[in-house]
Amino acid sequence: MADDKKLTTRAADFSAWYNEVIMRAELADYSPVRGCMVIRPNGYAIWEQMQRRLDEMFKDHGVQNAYFPLLIPQSFLSKEAEHVEGFAPELAVVTHGGGKELEEPLVIRPTSETIIYSMYAKWIQSYRDLPMLMNQWANVVRWEMRTRLFLRTAEFLWQEGHTAHVDEAEAEAFTLKILQTYRTFAEEWMAMPVLTGRKTDSERFAGALRTYCIEALMQDNKALQAGTSHNLGQNFAKAFQVTFQNDKGGLDYVWNTSWGVSTRLVGALVMTHGDDNGVITPPRLAQYQVVIVPIYKTDEERAQVLAAADLTLRELKAGGIRAHLDARDGVKPGAKYYEWEGRGVPFRLEIGPRDVAAGKVMLARRTGGRKVPMDTQGLAHTLRIEMDSMQVELLEAARTRREQNSIRGITKGSFLDFLARDGGFAYGGWCGDGKCEAEIKEETKATIRCLPDEEFQSPVRPETCMWCGRPATTEAVWARAY
Amino acid sequence: MADDKKLTTRAADFSAWYNEVIMRAELADYSPVRGCMVIRPNGYAIWEQMQRRLDEMFKDHGVQNAYFPLLIPQSFLSKEAEHVEGFAPELAVVTHGGGKELEEPLVIRPTSETIIYSMYAKWIQSYRDLPMLMNQWANVVRWEMRTRLFLRTAEFLWQEGHTAHVDEAEAEAFTLKILQTYRTFAEEWMAMPVLTGRKTDSERFAGALRTYCIEALMQDNKALQAGTSHNLGQNFAKAFQVTFQNDKGGLDYVWNTSWGVSTRLVGALVMTHGDDNGVITPPRLAQYQVVIVPIYKTDEERAQVLAAADLTLRELKAGGIRAHLDARDGVKPGAKYYEWEGRGVPFRLEIGPRDVAAGKVMLARRTGGRKVPMDTQGLAHTLRIEMDSMQVELLEAARTRREQNSIRGITKGSFLDFLARDGGFAYGGWCGDGKCEAEIKEETKATIRCLPDEEFQSPVRPETCMWCGRPATTEAVWARAY
Repeated sequence: MADDKKLTTRAADFSAWYNEVIMRAELADYSPVRGCMVIRPNGYAIWEQMQRRLDEMFKDHGVQNAYFPLLIPQSFLSKEAEHVEGFAPELAVVTHGGGKELEEPLVIRPTSETIIYSMYAKWIQSYRDLPMLMNQWANVVRWEMRTRLFLRTAEFLWQEGHTAHVDEAEAEAFTLKILQTYRTFAEEWMAMPVLTGRKTDSERFAGALRTYCIEALMQDNKALQAGTSHNLGQNFAKAFQVTFQNDKGGLDYVWNTSWGVSTRLVGALVMTHGDDNGVITPPRLAQYQVVIVPIYKTDEERAQVLAAADLTLRELKAGGIRAHLDARDGVKPGAKYYEWEGRGVPFRLEIGPRDVAAGKVMLARRTGGRKVPMDTQGLAHTLRIEMDSMQVELLEAARTRREQNSIRGITKGSFLDFLARDGGFAYGGWCGDGKCEAEIKEETKATIRCLPDEEFQSPVRPETCMWCGRPATTEAVWARAY
Repeated sequence: MADDKKLTTRAADFSAWYNEVIMRAELADYSPVRGCMVIRPNGYAIWEQMQRRLDEMFKDHGVQNAYFPLLIPQSFLSKEAEHVEGFAPELAVVTHGGGKELEEPLVIRPTSETIIYSMYAKWIQSYRDLPMLMNQWANVVRWEMRTRLFLRTAEFLWQEGHTAHVDEAEAEAFTLKILQTYRTFAEEWMAMPVLTGRKTDSERFAGALRTYCIEALMQDNKALQAGTSHNLGQNFAKAFQVTFQNDKGGLDYVWNTSWGVSTRLVGALVMTHGDDNGVITPPRLAQYQVVIVPIYKTDEERAQVLAAADLTLRELKAGGIRAHLDARDGVKPGAKYYEWEGRGVPFRLEIGPRDVAAGKVMLARRTGGRKVPMDTQGLAHTLRIEMDSMQVELLEAARTRREQNSIRGITKGSFLDFLARDGGFAYGGWCGDGKCEAEIKEETKATIRCLPDEEFQSPVRPETCMWCGRPATTEAVWARAY
């Protein structure tokens, strides 16, 4: 661990707490390159678990991985008018290569629609080639100076899926299928409840027809956009001439979707579950689900305890549990507890000489409560049940917190009060006018996070815009956001 | 498949064959970005299999994955004199970000020693922090205009390992451990025999003390460097002040190693095993190890055959075999055979109505021979034996070819003859003089691929330099290379 100083509490300064927790758990570090961070092994291990599961989920939908160039000719971005307008301010530009000035500058991909659809134009001939379903795991760069570890960095890692379909209905269905996949991942793997819904035009992806998102509420009651799925319509198909012969012999433009989640999810995980002692990692995404700490004084005890600990380790691993034995000499058990707690390991097993004699281990849960003695017999099975239960409890706790920090049926007055207190998700009617949306943002810094899907809408449909009082066209969810 | 034209044969034009094989199997494609390629799903799937296995092997050595920034301040490269000299001509330079000219240009990493060791300087305090063993899976850019798919592109994907150790002996041992890991992977997974050995000073990594490599011989008798492992000595530690308190309380510089293999290995695999019908993928790295092709005429046969094929598919998958059922309607069995053959799938199972009735399937091996009927009973087991046997046969065939195209105890005359005919690996004495090495390269285009490890040295030790006739200091292996 980086140091032993007490962490700032969440209540005292959430932002300081967040940085300290990450630094102490050695998830990431600042780099000498402005705007960029280093993902350290403890943080990367969480990302690897996320990647593994998401990759399986995408492949179950028939999506295949591929890899497209990092560098994109500047002219490509300009082919889709909204797209270039949205991304131009954030571009990193390569002007020299191999010691010479380039004829045309290349930009480092901020996202890969343009380069990918230029290839799709070559690969897609007929409706038989559709749908084309690809994903890439890659780094992207969006120039950004106000760095926040994992949440906002000039370079970040992500996956970006890109698909092509025969018609709008199929593209829309795929966009929503991915949105639900993201939701399932967030809830079942990250134990992070999310709202699903549609973005307003002002928050729509540059070049998309419609953008859908999953939105989570962090412990400081700020919203975090955790994933987006876009129906791109035929915008890029027209810009890059991605056409196909339909089954009647005519020529059509394809319908595209794109969708992504990033290493930002690691930050979301920390801000959803962490407590004043550090990170809490849901069991399904933990690098180590269980850490075993041996306790001994004499050499004889050491030999005996380590033998028992090693046996337990092997049994847990054989039972499919990601277990680690912290056998370091010269580090006291208490220091080990503190370190693994800070890193967020869900379960700790302590084994001392008396436990060995009794065929027991002491189980401590990262989420608190008393330590309890457990039989070593059948321990892997017991732990699997404990893990499932912690996974559910974390999700439920986060959902309860979110609901306690949500308000429905807002008026301008109650909305301003809500923001002046703790804030959170505020549901209310909206007139659908972008000017009204902009004014709210200007005056309160709160934005429309999404127009929520039916499941999340209020039982009573709002009739008027909570801000301007005109008739409401839809319900919206406002919050201050990362 | 891209087209149905007959492939150029290897004998007629190896280079054309290579490109056609890759395009037809849809492993990769040229991109609109000069010097860059697109890795298509069929090619990326091979890389994913490679990554999976290599990642396990590294983790078994205690190596952890991390991620460091893509962009490196230009001044960092200059801190190690040899390093900057080696890489300066190949750099891509970012001069503008976020619409402004940068104060200091950033280079896109050509390799990450400088940025990584600048972080190690912060993280390493004491001998207790050592060894530090990290790896990253990343993209790198080395400006390159003479593109060859997978072998030579401006951007490529690779892994780069970076470690820090207390002393030279431990660093050297780790460098060699990784070299052996690469060899094991090449031989046991790629079925590609390699020489191991040390690079001469002229071929050494810019900034390293010693560079070791694995070298393979392609079917056109050109050598391919397939992986390198460097003992970096204390060069980078001194440049970036990576020091630690040793166990006696003194301050020492760490000893570093770095090592990498890249998507070049996909090209190596194609050029090692491919034949005039396309790619041949060794079973252990194949995306699909077995493809099932159903054969039917009537609807009734179709239903019956597809049901049996699906059952077989599920049994093979349950048996841990990566199997795929090609159930496409409207594509004839012959066209399917041709397509999967081109893609290099090791085994094909044909199932027709008579096979179903007899409880059999027909097995075709990508490496040739007659089709043989197999019992569906116990098929997964039978196929696992077949796969192991093909894996061994491919390695043995490649090794035999390499040995047939190697010559030992060369003189200047026999060496020139050898190169004038087919070429290959030429073993001979070398005086150790870089001028002699340079003259040979100038006159013959052959380079010293490595100073071979003992296992690969000739039984009779050469006494004189094959070129200049002075006393030999070592045996060397020459070849023309990619």
